[in-house]
Parts: sequence; structure tokens; C-alpha cells
Amino acid sequence: GEGGGEDVAMDDVVRVPVVRMAIGEVAESSAVVVLPVCRAEGKQIEVEEAPWESGMRGEFGVVEAEKGWSRWVVLPGWGPVVPLKRGGVVVAFPKARGVLSWRSKRRDTEEEVLVVVDRERKEVEFDDGFYLVMSGGNGSGEEGLKVERGGKLKEIGVVESLGTVVLVVRPPREEVENLRDEDWE
Amino acid sequence: GEGGGEDVAMDDVVRVPVVRMAIGEVAESSAVVVLPVCRAEGKQIEVEEAPWESGMRGEFGVVEAEKGWSRWVVLPGWGPVVPLKRGGVVVAFPKARGVLSWRSKRRDTEEEVLVVVDRERKEVEFDDGFYLVMSGGNGSGEEGLKVERGGKLKEIGVVESLGTVVLVVRPPREEVENLRDEDWE
Repeated sequence: GEGGGEDVAMDDVVRVPVVRMAIGEVAESSAVVVLPVCRAEGKQIEVEEAPWESGMRGEFGVVEAEKGWSRWVVLPGWGPVVPLKRGGVVVAFPKARGVLSWRSKRRDTEEEVLVVVDRERKEVEFDDGFYLVMSGGNGSGEEGLKVERGGKLKEIGVVESLGTVVLVVRPPREEVENLRDEDWE
Repeated sequence: GEGGGEDVAMDDVVRVPVVRMAIGEVAESSAVVVLPVCRAEGKQIEVEEAPWESGMRGEFGVVEAEKGWSRWVVLPGWGPVVPLKRGGVVVAFPKARGVLSWRSKRRDTEEEVLVVVDRERKEVEFDDGFYLVMSGGNGSGEEGLKVERGGKLKEIGVVESLGTVVLVVRPPREEVENLRDEDWE
């Protein structure tokens, strides 16, 4: 199972890791990453316009983006996130449902999730990979940003995405809540 | 002395605490704070224009500023910084010299420092307090942002500043360097 959620275990380099943030985990990390945030209900343009450079510089790790942006998130320096030197962006989905369709425990689907995307890898490369796309809302669902499997995109002839999903982050869960949880992970 | 620098010790509520960041310290505290950054060589307008709202919201602590900004820093949730719900800003000084004139160890004066300022407290209140002001550069020094003692400002009739300095942050120092240091703190 995904267990404590502190380590990002990837048993397949193509699949996307899902990690649950621990309470206060950002503070406990020896390194952090700061990335611009887009809203899932936003438009494609928001993802494209978010700053591409968000590296931390100097002795204090000051983030110097190439342009201003109002939404930012601090993440622990997880393996899949650290290499995003350029083009990293986070999309905040108010509900995991739809985003994490391949995992469907009821409680989890109601949670907010953050999807970390590498905008420098737009090509729909792997069937098992996950990609950020703009969903047109043509009867099949709401218009907005969506995470889709590579295989499904290829089936409908989509070869370019807004970026490759490198990590999905679930919110911290209160300890006490875990104890009540009947379906232990 | 300021010693390990991990705790912010204030023996006088009016004086400004100076803290040395530990290596990887965005570590070790139970929360982090994200603040907009201005350059010391910038103009007063930069300090006034930096976002006032930089609170962290939701389960992931996403920063939602009221406007875009390109420079940000993540700080450990130190005591004097956490209460800055609105109006907090960080000014990055390339040299501590001049900023930390009341401490003049040679090596320290060459270091970069971050000055954390509360823009909601503009009034020059305490003689012993420190305030961010714009220095005109009228022969007495370079034009730019400056940290000045309340007493000195009052002497020249200045009653309003750009904000009260709540914390000065020194950069992390390599352990090995500390061992060579002859003037232990």
C-alpha cells in the first residue's frame, strides 16, 4: 500500500507515483521545492502562462520566477519533483474523483489533490503514463483540466499534452482520523 | 550569544532578533512561511507593491497572494514571522554591512541577510526598534532601502517608516567553517 506516504516509491518508471503528504512534512524536509499553482477549473492558458522558472537561488533559496504569479505551493523535496528545474507546475483539483480514477476508495475521491506536471514533457509517450490535458466538455464531462492515461489519449489520436504528470499529492490526514479508518492501507 | 541560531531568543520585546538559519532548516520547525521578496537596491515602490496577502490556505498550504509576484522565500515558522498574516515582506540585502551595523564582526558584514518587515507597523515607535526606510543617498550613503534605529529616525523627525523590522536572517554556515572560526559565538 501507499502506507506512511513519506517516501515516493516507484515500482515502474512509467506509472505516476501517488503520495500522501504527512502532517507538517514540508517543515521536516531537508529540502523544499516551490512551484506555481493553477486551478483545475482554470483554462489551458493558465497552465501555459504560469512561470516556467521557479528555481531557488542563493543562500536563502529565494525563488526567482521570470514573471509574477499569485499562487504558489511549497512541497517537500520528493524525488520526482526535485528534477523539475524548468516547466514544473502544480494543478490543484478540488476533488480527486476523475483525477485518480484508477483508485476509487470512496473517501479518497472526495479529497483535494495536487497534480505535479512537467510542462517540458508534452509528448504523449507511454500508454501507462498520465498526462495533463484540457477536456473540451463535449458531453462527456465538464470543461476543464484533466488527467488522462497515455493509452487513452493515443486511442483518440492525441499526441501532445500540456505536460506529463510526475506526481500526485494527497492531503495530510489527521492521526485520529486514521485510527478510525476501517480500511487501513 | 546567538549560538546555534535555531531558536529566536528575544530578551527585549523591542529589539530585533537576529537568527542564523541552519543548513536545511526549512527543516526542524513545525510550519513554514512564504513571503514575497524585494531587493535592497530596489525602490520604495517595490516594497509597497509587493503582495500584502501571502497566507497559506487549504490542506496543502497553497499561497494565494492578491497579485502576482516573482520573488518569494520560504522561511521556517519562526516566532516573530508567523504572526505576519498581512503585510509581511522580506528585503534581501547582499551585504549585512550597514544593515547590521550594531554587530560588526568582519566576516558577518560580508554576508547576505534577509530582513523580515511588517508593513502594517509603519509608525516609528520604539527608540530601540529597527525600521525599514528609503535612504535618499544625500551624500551620507547610497540610495536604497536601509534599516535604521527608531531613535535615530526620531532625531531627524521621521515618524513613519516602510515597516517595522521583525527579524533579521543570516545565511546557513557550513559546519566545517564554524570549526575554523576563531571568534566563537
